[in-house]
Amino acid sequence: MTAEHHRLVIVGGSDAGIAAGMRAHQLDPTLRPLVVVADAYPNFSICGLPFYLSGETPDWRDLAHRDHGALEAAGLQLRLDTRAVAVDAAEHAVTVRGSNGADQVIGYDQLIIGTGAVPARPPIDGLDLPGVQLLHSMDHVFAFHDRLTAASTRRAVIVGAGYIGLELADAFVHRGLDHVTVVEMADQVLTTVDAELAAPIRATLERHGVTVATGVTVAAIQPDGGHLRVLAADGDDHWPADLVAVAGGVRPDTALAATAGATIGEHDAIVVDRRMRTGVDGVYAAGDCVQTWHALLDKPTYLPLGTTAHKQGRVAGANAVGHDAVYAGSLGSQAVKLFDRVVARTGLRPHDAAEHGFNARTVDITVDDHKAYYPGATDLRIRLTGAAHGRLLGAQLLGHHDAEVAKRCDIIAAAIHQRLSVADLLDLDLTYTPPLSAPWDPVQQAAQAWDSSHG
Amino acid sequence: MTAEHHRLVIVGGSDAGIAAGMRAHQLDPTLRPLVVVADAYPNFSICGLPFYLSGETPDWRDLAHRDHGALEAAGLQLRLDTRAVAVDAAEHAVTVRGSNGADQVIGYDQLIIGTGAVPARPPIDGLDLPGVQLLHSMDHVFAFHDRLTAASTRRAVIVGAGYIGLELADAFVHRGLDHVTVVEMADQVLTTVDAELAAPIRATLERHGVTVATGVTVAAIQPDGGHLRVLAADGDDHWPADLVAVAGGVRPDTALAATAGATIGEHDAIVVDRRMRTGVDGVYAAGDCVQTWHALLDKPTYLPLGTTAHKQGRVAGANAVGHDAVYAGSLGSQAVKLFDRVVARTGLRPHDAAEHGFNARTVDITVDDHKAYYPGATDLRIRLTGAAHGRLLGAQLLGHHDAEVAKRCDIIAAAIHQRLSVADLLDLDLTYTPPLSAPWDPVQQAAQAWDSSHG
Repeated sequence: MTAEHHRLVIVGGSDAGIAAGMRAHQLDPTLRPLVVVADAYPNFSICGLPFYLSGETPDWRDLAHRDHGALEAAGLQLRLDTRAVAVDAAEHAVTVRGSNGADQVIGYDQLIIGTGAVPARPPIDGLDLPGVQLLHSMDHVFAFHDRLTAASTRRAVIVGAGYIGLELADAFVHRGLDHVTVVEMADQVLTTVDAELAAPIRATLERHGVTVATGVTVAAIQPDGGHLRVLAADGDDHWPADLVAVAGGVRPDTALAATAGATIGEHDAIVVDRRMRTGVDGVYAAGDCVQTWHALLDKPTYLPLGTTAHKQGRVAGANAVGHDAVYAGSLGSQAVKLFDRVVARTGLRPHDAAEHGFNARTVDITVDDHKAYYPGATDLRIRLTGAAHGRLLGAQLLGHHDAEVAKRCDIIAAAIHQRLSVADLLDLDLTYTPPLSAPWDPVQQAAQAWDSSHG
Repeated sequence: MTAEHHRLVIVGGSDAGIAAGMRAHQLDPTLRPLVVVADAYPNFSICGLPFYLSGETPDWRDLAHRDHGALEAAGLQLRLDTRAVAVDAAEHAVTVRGSNGADQVIGYDQLIIGTGAVPARPPIDGLDLPGVQLLHSMDHVFAFHDRLTAASTRRAVIVGAGYIGLELADAFVHRGLDHVTVVEMADQVLTTVDAELAAPIRATLERHGVTVATGVTVAAIQPDGGHLRVLAADGDDHWPADLVAVAGGVRPDTALAATAGATIGEHDAIVVDRRMRTGVDGVYAAGDCVQTWHALLDKPTYLPLGTTAHKQGRVAGANAVGHDAVYAGSLGSQAVKLFDRVVARTGLRPHDAAEHGFNARTVDITVDDHKAYYPGATDLRIRLTGAAHGRLLGAQLLGHHDAEVAKRCDIIAAAIHQRLSVADLLDLDLTYTPPLSAPWDPVQQAAQAWDSSHG
């Protein structure tokens, strides 16, 4: 066997892998990294899947951040429908398996593992029944789409009320289903924000006709005369469905990294340093498969996000071509649009802060997003958390789609990144015009409220 | 004459004065500052006047940030329709004149001057003709409103294409006037942004039916058979009008400060240090009447803005009650909404940067405000300026009203405040969801473009 050899091999064609390859080529244009992609859909926007399902993005091809030509123009060599099955780190070689089942060994100088995450399979009987959908590969998504758009599909149950689960609820309402139900094990929807914000989010869902059941563990999904039935563990509740979407989070896909001898750490994710090195010679990893450095806690955590995957990939790609890049870390900044509302968060919530030893205080204000005398002002809610000594720790925002909720969260994220205090927010020279803000932006009004909340 | 005496006297009932008084009372609840207000309209939002004129804010009373009761509840004693005419700094006394013309001497321990700015009177003949309007006191505004809403007013000319001039153009179109013309001396509208952005802003105005004439100096406004006529200095151009609005900028109102012996500096504004001290014992000044510390240039400039007035007032109020507060400085962050567009800017523009000795580079990108596969994506334009050594210097953004333009500008303002480099923007953990952004926010895409633009 004549071994094929590449200076840089990247496994994974999603955010981390593509970002890594593009950065490597940008810094060293003589390099054309080989990107091994398990399916035929490189550089697809996983975050866009709910909008394909909703019908807002009618053509799934539009979900690609870049098409094949653009990726090649960016310096990448793509090997599609090819799975990397094992790494021989001592030999600097990775074994890949094409769609014909044949294995091939490819040598590398540097290897970047960006295998991402796979949907968690919660302990529910019946996950493999027809009509039970997980958001995984694009092939699964097509099956999901077919089922969703079948005339006979009138009732959907979503298991899991996280970001994806709630985006699916929005999507199903947009599709015009008769009954959309979300079942969540926790006592609230969207456990990534505090219960105080989860309550109005739930109300928004209900106002749009979504049935929400919290504090319910699903035990089984059963066939029921051509349909499905979702059963709660307590035996009392059950929901009929034509389609069941399981959105129970993800787990890192670390099988390949394990073959390379990489360490698997907390949350079963690959241990990497801030240069995205696994500790195995020549092997980097990035994206949803790795532990993420938390910029505020100064320690690793697991926060699988597209934004993080892009940043980590960029760092890995730079280091793989001899630069010295360091991942600055994540604050868990996230936003989601649900119907006409946007929820955004960054940094630590009160219970996170307490858990990590901060003596934290949180204020919760509701203010106009802009001067009330200009038409269209809406309520903007901000929960701001700071340490007793003043350090800004986190924020959660909820407001109308037009209220610049997400980018207001990002002002706070930028401030946390620089380790500012809550009071420092008042020093920021932020823009103001009555149709968009107030002389003290709502973010600063929250800081003033926090400052006044002593004791 | 029995001298009335107060621990803190504040002259001026607009942003700086009210902010100062509220902060002083907050820090020392035993103190109820006396606020001397020249008219009957304390704490009015000057920035809101265009929306009262447009009809979007039908009741002028809504323009008050706080009503009389709220101001008293915030600890202020208001003395309305009273002008402060002279300060005797040696005696710690200010002479005020009530609407009855009687003078009274009021003693103070500390005095804060927040006399603001007055509209500049450009050298144009006919500024005092009926139908020629400056945005000054509320009484002027009522006359303006009456004239604007008279059935006979069908044609308006605006002299000056700055923020206010263009907001008035928007307002007049909203009112349904037949002809709205803006005449500007400079070669572009909105000289606070680069010509490259001014051109599409001009196109937006023209698309909404506004006639725009740049590079034209107005020499005179003349009566013309019951109407008015605006004449250009070159004698060739003239525009008929039923109403002429003069929006030629402002100049600091420093007359009172001069009587106190305060130094008047560049731009004819009051010289203050970053604690808002005038150098005269017990006399502070804040707001549109003072020089403003520029946070990036580390020197004073003149940037009359409501946001700045609030911040400076807050600093002055704190220091007047014995605290030690320092004004962090301005970056000239500003936003304006014109029709369906928003323009925002912060920091230095290329020519500012060059003038102040920076070897600066600017990129100009147009990207989707959010993922194009989600409906409603619009062009977002970002001009990003950085120093050759990497320091982030400034940004100018133009985009659709729904594109979070202003708060994206503020992310950059927060970064400049912390003296980040352009590349540091890539490290910020900003929120992402396809309906609102991209995995690299447009702000970060601009940073990447800047980074790639070497040479």
